[in-house]
Amino acid sequence: MSYFDAASAAPLHPVARQALLASLDEGWADPARLYREGRRARMLLDASREAAAEAVGCRPDELVFTPSGTRAVHSGVAGALAGRRRAGRHLIVSAVEHSSVLHSAEVFASEGGTVTQVPVLRSGAVTVESYAGALRSDTALACLQSANHEVGTEQPVAEVAEACREAGVPLFVDAAQSLGWGPVEGPWSLLAASAHKWGGPSGVGLLVVRKGVRFAPQGALDERESGRAAGFENIPAIVAAVASLRAVGAAAEAERLRELTGRIRAGVARSVPDVEVVGDAERRLPGIVTFSCLYVDGETLLHELDREGFSVSSGSSCTSSTLTPSHVLKAMGVLSEGNVRVSLPMGTAEEDVERFLAVLPRAVAGVREKLGAPTPGPTAATGADELVVDSLGKLCPIPVIELAKAIGQVPVGGTVRVLSDDEAARLDIPAWCQMRGQEYVGEEPADRGSAHLVRRLL
Amino acid sequence: MSYFDAASAAPLHPVARQALLASLDEGWADPARLYREGRRARMLLDASREAAAEAVGCRPDELVFTPSGTRAVHSGVAGALAGRRRAGRHLIVSAVEHSSVLHSAEVFASEGGTVTQVPVLRSGAVTVESYAGALRSDTALACLQSANHEVGTEQPVAEVAEACREAGVPLFVDAAQSLGWGPVEGPWSLLAASAHKWGGPSGVGLLVVRKGVRFAPQGALDERESGRAAGFENIPAIVAAVASLRAVGAAAEAERLRELTGRIRAGVARSVPDVEVVGDAERRLPGIVTFSCLYVDGETLLHELDREGFSVSSGSSCTSSTLTPSHVLKAMGVLSEGNVRVSLPMGTAEEDVERFLAVLPRAVAGVREKLGAPTPGPTAATGADELVVDSLGKLCPIPVIELAKAIGQVPVGGTVRVLSDDEAARLDIPAWCQMRGQEYVGEEPADRGSAHLVRRLL
Repeated sequence: MSYFDAASAAPLHPVARQALLASLDEGWADPARLYREGRRARMLLDASREAAAEAVGCRPDELVFTPSGTRAVHSGVAGALAGRRRAGRHLIVSAVEHSSVLHSAEVFASEGGTVTQVPVLRSGAVTVESYAGALRSDTALACLQSANHEVGTEQPVAEVAEACREAGVPLFVDAAQSLGWGPVEGPWSLLAASAHKWGGPSGVGLLVVRKGVRFAPQGALDERESGRAAGFENIPAIVAAVASLRAVGAAAEAERLRELTGRIRAGVARSVPDVEVVGDAERRLPGIVTFSCLYVDGETLLHELDREGFSVSSGSSCTSSTLTPSHVLKAMGVLSEGNVRVSLPMGTAEEDVERFLAVLPRAVAGVREKLGAPTPGPTAATGADELVVDSLGKLCPIPVIELAKAIGQVPVGGTVRVLSDDEAARLDIPAWCQMRGQEYVGEEPADRGSAHLVRRLL
Repeated sequence: MSYFDAASAAPLHPVARQALLASLDEGWADPARLYREGRRARMLLDASREAAAEAVGCRPDELVFTPSGTRAVHSGVAGALAGRRRAGRHLIVSAVEHSSVLHSAEVFASEGGTVTQVPVLRSGAVTVESYAGALRSDTALACLQSANHEVGTEQPVAEVAEACREAGVPLFVDAAQSLGWGPVEGPWSLLAASAHKWGGPSGVGLLVVRKGVRFAPQGALDERESGRAAGFENIPAIVAAVASLRAVGAAAEAERLRELTGRIRAGVARSVPDVEVVGDAERRLPGIVTFSCLYVDGETLLHELDREGFSVSSGSSCTSSTLTPSHVLKAMGVLSEGNVRVSLPMGTAEEDVERFLAVLPRAVAGVREKLGAPTPGPTAATGADELVVDSLGKLCPIPVIELAKAIGQVPVGGTVRVLSDDEAARLDIPAWCQMRGQEYVGEEPADRGSAHLVRRLL
């Protein structure tokens, strides 16, 4: 089995396992108590906080442990917004933040706040200029991930943090994907992370609030974790999380994984036809590579890969419970069908990557064959200048497959009108046009769904 | 070492430890994923939910796992209040609920809700009549613990649940202290519990919301745990929590611990002078016994017991960060000075209890001697009909000690006026009067603090 979904959850690191076992007998008591077992638990908690702060690059009293990265984000964003209520009710997020940040923004908007989503380039990165341009005099908080969880693109956090500092606006950094590889640079104000992303156990997140940042924790609280994270501290898991944070992230391993993902980027583009490798080719996390395959149903491809022993994830609409494609791929404006994210855990064997590259083309071809995907080659034009393809009720990737088959039937200059009520078509038909060198004329409302108009250019 | 503070946190049960180790390798992946590791995690999570629901006596789809018992209470109370917003904005709690319930009530009050605190008897229990009497037509939610965490008194939950049902008001039960001993009876609507109270690991709480109960989760959310508990599920800890829930709570062990705590109740009353054993003598949890010692500084006594190898906790003001005595002891109207809670973990050895009973009288006598506590025997009256004792700036138990020394100096019928700015004096001076057969006349405001007036009766 090759587990290639470290960006969802990394398997427990041996150091974390060892630390967890060792502290099960030492760290179960209430650290607020004065007796022996309580003092021992308190010492473990204090030592873990010191070590975590050192790894993050902050003061120990700026860092609290939360029950998960998600909770760190929810509490951090809500607390920072409330603490800056007098400054204003405007929040900035990038369009490709993790859902935990976007959910926090939704709550804020539902309470009357204003949210600006900063768009991203096709690479998945914001530009410093567009981010800085969103800053207003009433901006209470700005949020930017250190690197994207779906495509691995690194954000210009240090520069954005600088711009925020100049504007007097605190920057909240979701560092979930990058903290295992090292501290986040720049004058950020708040930071959240999640231990199970770097090989620590589930159940541990970090929330850092720099001294001087106005912060008003929300909801019911207690005295634990400086009043910022209620509930009994999970000390054995915290000890394990911090031990593994210090053990992981060696520069040599980062280099090795970067080479392996580079090999996948090149290999996929070379050996799979009609594929789009997405995300920034240079400014990216070591272990993540993402690509989308035309005429492929993401869910079926994931099943095929699972049968071959590869565990990967996908941002395709058919693999999400909402039947909409990933908001990240959407914001980037890239193809979402047949999407595959490979995220290599630290220590991934080279052979496994090679085997993946050997298996993938067959798997993709198999799915395409089942779906009746168009094969390259000339098609006889029917003579009609405009064809209408009725893809209503059909889900990704069928509308694109039907478009691809129809385009050869109109003469160059002619148009195909695809009727579709699939949310993914809105993203994938323009992406197909860009990949195929055809013109996407636009989308028009229709009785059901939308009509997507495509002009044949070649 | 004898750890006698199971009501704070129980040491990890061997079954929990074994289950945790076994599932570290099986349960770390994302249960929302479709690949092998994800499916395995999902199976563990589903099986744990089934087993937990069986132990609680509910349907699996009524139960979600939270990161702690505190979070289960915070989320449960907030969600139930929001779900019943149309019914009204009135909340009922007992005066002796866990701080997590009271904190939730404070948040509700700060948002404009009305909260009724139902008083308790000197035993720590509410009466069904007084609880039912608090129900109003605009009551959105009622909260009652199954048993008290500081004194072990069981509440009449089944009867109160019945009264609530008749009134059409959902009852939220904080079952943290009792669930390890068996399910909560009666037609309750919501229930919260915490695994580390029954020997499970930290990091796992349960929240049960019965079908048909209106519930609107608050704050930022995600799709996990039916949208009721955000953040990556901590599956190894959940598996361990549920395995131990099924392993603990044998009736024979309950009987054995009940006999041991009964022995402490009797032994303390017999061998320690000037002591008040608090909490209901009959309707009580098997493992908890609590008593307060006149003229004793709780913190010093805890240190002495710690040196002798006993880990216990206290509701005395000197052992709390707020310098106020436990709200539970206050609501019960019992002595708070020199307070000790003994809560025996399952499996406690009889010898350890016997050794505790042997050590305690010496430890109490030692603390009293250091503090210069009054010794029994006649004191010559000074002749003055009224004495003023200035205890300003002095903390528990000093004001009571000074009162006890002064009372012999006034004739029978004379009064002592104790000036004190210690919050604990308000509770302990009346309690002393009751224990000593003197008359507590009342409290009057003074320049600083209060004046407590006591009349000598014998």
